Amino acid sequence: MTWQLARRTARMNPSVIREILKITERPGIISLAGGLPAPESFPVQAVREACARVLAETPHEALQYAASEGFGPLREWVAAELGTHGMRVGADQVLITTGSQQGLDLVGKVLIDAGSRVAVEAPTYLGALQAFALYECEFVSVACDAQGPLPDGLDAARGARFLYLLPNFQNPSGRSIGASRRAELVRQAQRLGLPLVEDNPYGELGYDAPPPAPLSAAAGDGAIYLGSLSKVLAPGLRLGYLVAPKALFGKLLQAKQAADLHTPGFNQRIAHEVLRSGLLERHLPQVRQRYKARRDAMAAALERYMPAGCRWNVPAGGMFFWVELPPSLDATALLPQAVEAGMAYVPGAPFYCDAGGNGGAVAHNTLRLSFVTVSPERIDTGIAALATVLSRALSGHARSQGTRQP
Amino acid sequence: MTWQLARRTARMNPSVIREILKITERPGIISLAGGLPAPESFPVQAVREACARVLAETPHEALQYAASEGFGPLREWVAAELGTHGMRVGADQVLITTGSQQGLDLVGKVLIDAGSRVAVEAPTYLGALQAFALYECEFVSVACDAQGPLPDGLDAARGARFLYLLPNFQNPSGRSIGASRRAELVRQAQRLGLPLVEDNPYGELGYDAPPPAPLSAAAGDGAIYLGSLSKVLAPGLRLGYLVAPKALFGKLLQAKQAADLHTPGFNQRIAHEVLRSGLLERHLPQVRQRYKARRDAMAAALERYMPAGCRWNVPAGGMFFWVELPPSLDATALLPQAVEAGMAYVPGAPFYCDAGGNGGAVAHNTLRLSFVTVSPERIDTGIAALATVLSRALSGHARSQGTRQP
Repeated sequence: MTWQLARRTARMNPSVIREILKITERPGIISLAGGLPAPESFPVQAVREACARVLAETPHEALQYAASEGFGPLREWVAAELGTHGMRVGADQVLITTGSQQGLDLVGKVLIDAGSRVAVEAPTYLGALQAFALYECEFVSVACDAQGPLPDGLDAARGARFLYLLPNFQNPSGRSIGASRRAELVRQAQRLGLPLVEDNPYGELGYDAPPPAPLSAAAGDGAIYLGSLSKVLAPGLRLGYLVAPKALFGKLLQAKQAADLHTPGFNQRIAHEVLRSGLLERHLPQVRQRYKARRDAMAAALERYMPAGCRWNVPAGGMFFWVELPPSLDATALLPQAVEAGMAYVPGAPFYCDAGGNGGAVAHNTLRLSFVTVSPERIDTGIAALATVLSRALSGHARSQGTRQP
Repeated sequence: MTWQLARRTARMNPSVIREILKITERPGIISLAGGLPAPESFPVQAVREACARVLAETPHEALQYAASEGFGPLREWVAAELGTHGMRVGADQVLITTGSQQGLDLVGKVLIDAGSRVAVEAPTYLGALQAFALYECEFVSVACDAQGPLPDGLDAARGARFLYLLPNFQNPSGRSIGASRRAELVRQAQRLGLPLVEDNPYGELGYDAPPPAPLSAAAGDGAIYLGSLSKVLAPGLRLGYLVAPKALFGKLLQAKQAADLHTPGFNQRIAHEVLRSGLLERHLPQVRQRYKARRDAMAAALERYMPAGCRWNVPAGGMFFWVELPPSLDATALLPQAVEAGMAYVPGAPFYCDAGGNGGAVAHNTLRLSFVTVSPERIDTGIAALATVLSRALSGHARSQGTRQP
């Protein structure tokens, strides 16, 4: 039988991270590789009560087909919530998505043609690279520093369909864009006529201070904003949302309809019950406190154990540390030794779009560490093990350098 | 700001049916337009118990990120269930999707390039036309009779990426493909090297006899099979599945991952709890009995009221009657009069791909009636109202014909 694959399937590769995660699920491994929230932080009791209420009060509505836009009261909640962050949007601009990953897919479907240029940070979220690549775009990386994209770097994105960025506690780098940099980036994007796609899954996970207002608040109709309930409630509900300029909303809605008709109404009603109860006000401080302790434990362990020549930033929120090793080391090549030593991380290479040029070169000497699912004690043990592997590799490298220069 | 839309967005049109459904939601209207299952048939108590059990026994797993393939035990259930219908498939060929609409989108993503030909029945499921069109295919209609595609009609599909068909109680036509026609179609498809995409959302809703084995059972690696839990459990859970040849599974899985990471694990576990309890064995006969009574009520009402020159088949299952009016009548043009008279239907035109040629001409004199959500009494009243509108239109047409031929 002659199955002919679409050309875009050549862009699909088995997820490197997925393969790594399989290895690291071995019992006993201290995995700092995952990107999962801590399950003990899920508001199970609130979900249980919300389920019972939804199935008692509106069982037929919750289990029936529903509007592609999403559940009205949840859309209202999102619009109101974003209002408290400085965004003035109507509920009619809010589209509920099946996780914010679906938001990325819909954005790609509506905005990317084969050969379109899409600008991204270096590094950036791997799942966005995967979603956009299937619409056969060409990626361009904008030059970044420790605060994210450099305003001058946006020149490289001229003519791109959009610039995709994660301003808060970025996955994978943990970095955040400061308020004045945000303003500069919005001005520069407007000057270039460059639309923004702002992805904010981690914004509620600030441990030192809440993040500045979204770029979308200043960019107005020049931005699409993506949000998620995965990190504030629970990812297994698969609830995200996007906020789009009115001129784009209709097309995104039709793409949504073709993609899965609508996000499960049952889940939307459960989430709305939980959210309107005001649970987040009690729940989020607890999550932040737990995660902050783990962030601090990892910062202390890195400080204590890492060999000279390694660099990292202490993220102000989110879930990840990003470590830069001395240039002689390759994080992908070292992973098996780390697993052997009892810990796992994710190498940084897959988070680069590999577009080369302006800031896009793959940094093979980088790795990502997640601190939210592991206890402070195990973080300490895991980082010590990593440091041992790195020290051994560095001294081996020094020796091999030595033999070459006798 | 310069938002440039992807070329495919030119293929997106506000759903005609969606617009119609808005009108028909006016209170008092007897709507035979919808495609929704009857909410009183949802197994609410079973879902309630399953929720409680899932949240008591595996709350963290249910609310955490999960595998893109789907929940293992649910995949096993699907494979076993399909085995009872003559399909020999492994659980590793089953991909759980966010409704079977997502299955259509993933099939399009993996198999359609811009300009690819996709063969469909005339008429066919509107949601499939919408999903495939976004991958910029060219549609070709295969010639059909009251039993579905004619084996000789498949010649027109030569070179198409696949033939999409709904063999059981098709939406919109209600027709079913008999066992010997299935065998002929599979042979003909194999001769032409034409892959099949078989969509079976209604297979469990047979009122007279269960349908013959799926075409996929005979086509083996020449077919992708799509199934749904929307009509046997509840659509608001958004659970469907696809079964793919092993050679295609990896690509479909990667497309799934990019689309929404995974279908809500919470929902999958609830559905699995309900299904493994054996509920369907008690529940489905009740659903069938209820729907059969309504099917019979609609058949009787059509027989009783419809003016001469109208034709319809009595569907052996599913949710829809398909009515062919005399060629002088246009079902789209008559809809406002029907709504005025207190009832609504869906015109047949949007269900044609409008490819012209071999069986693809749009039949403007067709309409779809759903019988599952309305009581037998209201079905009778609704069909009587429809018949009055049609009779008036026919006598008006006869008069206008008369004045032209004095």
